[in-house]
Amino acid sequence: MQTIPIRATRPYEVKLGKGLLDSLGTELARIGKGKVMIVTDENVAPLYLARAYRSLKEAGFTVYTSAVPAGEGSKSMKYYVNLLELLANKELTRSDTLIALGGGVVGDLTGFVAASYLRGISYVQVPTTLLAMVDSSVGGKTAINLQGGKNLVGAFHQPSLVLCDTELLNSLPPEEFRAGCGEVIKTAILFDKELFAHLREKRLNFDQEYVIGCCIRRKGAVVCDDEFDRGQRQLLNLGHTVGHAIEFLSDYGIPHGYAVAAGCCILARSLGRQADRIIECFSAFGLPTTSFFSPKALAAGALSDKKRKGDHLTLVVPVEVGHCELRQIPLTELESIIEAGISHE
Amino acid sequence: MQTIPIRATRPYEVKLGKGLLDSLGTELARIGKGKVMIVTDENVAPLYLARAYRSLKEAGFTVYTSAVPAGEGSKSMKYYVNLLELLANKELTRSDTLIALGGGVVGDLTGFVAASYLRGISYVQVPTTLLAMVDSSVGGKTAINLQGGKNLVGAFHQPSLVLCDTELLNSLPPEEFRAGCGEVIKTAILFDKELFAHLREKRLNFDQEYVIGCCIRRKGAVVCDDEFDRGQRQLLNLGHTVGHAIEFLSDYGIPHGYAVAAGCCILARSLGRQADRIIECFSAFGLPTTSFFSPKALAAGALSDKKRKGDHLTLVVPVEVGHCELRQIPLTELESIIEAGISHE
Repeated sequence: MQTIPIRATRPYEVKLGKGLLDSLGTELARIGKGKVMIVTDENVAPLYLARAYRSLKEAGFTVYTSAVPAGEGSKSMKYYVNLLELLANKELTRSDTLIALGGGVVGDLTGFVAASYLRGISYVQVPTTLLAMVDSSVGGKTAINLQGGKNLVGAFHQPSLVLCDTELLNSLPPEEFRAGCGEVIKTAILFDKELFAHLREKRLNFDQEYVIGCCIRRKGAVVCDDEFDRGQRQLLNLGHTVGHAIEFLSDYGIPHGYAVAAGCCILARSLGRQADRIIECFSAFGLPTTSFFSPKALAAGALSDKKRKGDHLTLVVPVEVGHCELRQIPLTELESIIEAGISHE
Repeated sequence: MQTIPIRATRPYEVKLGKGLLDSLGTELARIGKGKVMIVTDENVAPLYLARAYRSLKEAGFTVYTSAVPAGEGSKSMKYYVNLLELLANKELTRSDTLIALGGGVVGDLTGFVAASYLRGISYVQVPTTLLAMVDSSVGGKTAINLQGGKNLVGAFHQPSLVLCDTELLNSLPPEEFRAGCGEVIKTAILFDKELFAHLREKRLNFDQEYVIGCCIRRKGAVVCDDEFDRGQRQLLNLGHTVGHAIEFLSDYGIPHGYAVAAGCCILARSLGRQADRIIECFSAFGLPTTSFFSPKALAAGALSDKKRKGDHLTLVVPVEVGHCELRQIPLTELESIIEAGISHE
């Protein structure tokens, strides 16, 4: 078991190891008391909700639960409002806690509910997907989607605790596991040549605790230096500008990690110096390395994303493995940069 | 004209004086650029929207506007979502600004939209009511109502600028002006014997710039010491615990300032030492000093408010003019405290 401290404005810990789900109640009892509401989705509920419930109950909490439908559609105003009214109905107060038991959708939704209910109550992340473990559960970015675009509403709100039980990954469909690998490889390209070498060698059989631990430490360090996303944290958006466009154009049929992989490879070809190494690694994990959408459509999709600031946007350029750069580009140049990075093979 | 610095985490200024509305554009141009969205209500729009629009346009901004219906009903999820989708549709980015032109409803709604759109963009308060000038426009508390209760959702998000044009008060209905006086007297009871003496002497003909300036300075000081409402800021809730219950039970037919006046007088009678002076002052402004709802109903209404924490709540006791105290009481004692403070004369 690893304990990884995250030194945000309000510090907290990530616990990482096998079988941790059953210690959720005792872990939470160290930092909170009173009522808890477990938010999960309809795929995760039959697998893990009973264990989470029992653990919390045995530790003395009053436990409520709510399961939203699985999938991106639940990261919406509708479920946001439903959850808020439910919390008011159950009379949760500022000393109570939400538990996000699920993937990124559940985490982002629950996090924004926790950020805004009574102007902020605490919440715990219990990620059940690789993607959520290495990415969304750490850093305090919470969000829901508007009809006008993905993640357009949200808040910065750090969890009080993150519990990563690697055993939960056993139930993850292979496609979702690979999607998580997209963000893992992204982290390696950004910060860690050794991690990249381990992934190249072991492929899908990588050492989960070592790799997830690396990713959380790297993300934690960047996030604490730039909690409110004004500078270096933008590096974490490697692959995301084009990636979000791919997700958007596919109506979210293409998973986030797949889209990030493709987005990263497109920029590597267009602006980087080690495109071959990068593409080969994503490819070895069964991840896409280009997109069939037109550069024009991809550029338009990318511009609907919130990282725009006036008439420029910041791209993360994967120059080499272990060395990426933020580059401000005029909005008008995006299409030709994408065009140069699309492989038609 | 006064400039009052508010030293919050992100410092900003309150400008206070006559005729400031026409300088909105030049004031904003000193701190922002790009697009602005003016949010106002249907009562304020015909009076002041054109002047605000012109001032911003002449300063070079791209200006959009949106008017919600007047009244508490607009502080709802429906208008929150509508505004967010509108911002996405107009493609406002993180460097753009919202303007709240109106009373507390418009300010609280616009503030929460600004707090959560793209995880936070800047906003300016241009309060058009006395209540908003002395209370809601300073301090960064933003909120909307749920079906389950008032102000149950929101965020702490400081404005970039507050522009208080005292001329705008000329168009305020007398009842709304008096409602604002409820919060003014509250501030005097909390912090300022001189202000209290001025109000007792001048009654409704008080010196607006002096009085509003006092209230903003006092509130600004408390808020900066306790930006996230964990301690002394709770003093500002003087009269609010019972006041919220009165508003709630009257289905928001009784204005906020009236309810606060009554709430303050009830606690003064029950737990204070200068009830007569306090009641006489509120009364001289034509404000209510008791409530016709039953103590039982008032206690139940108060407990639905978010300031509860577990099985206790914090009451602000008006011990004397210029000296109030926070007191933790068990939830079970609230009804008898209210009972002792209700006057049946």
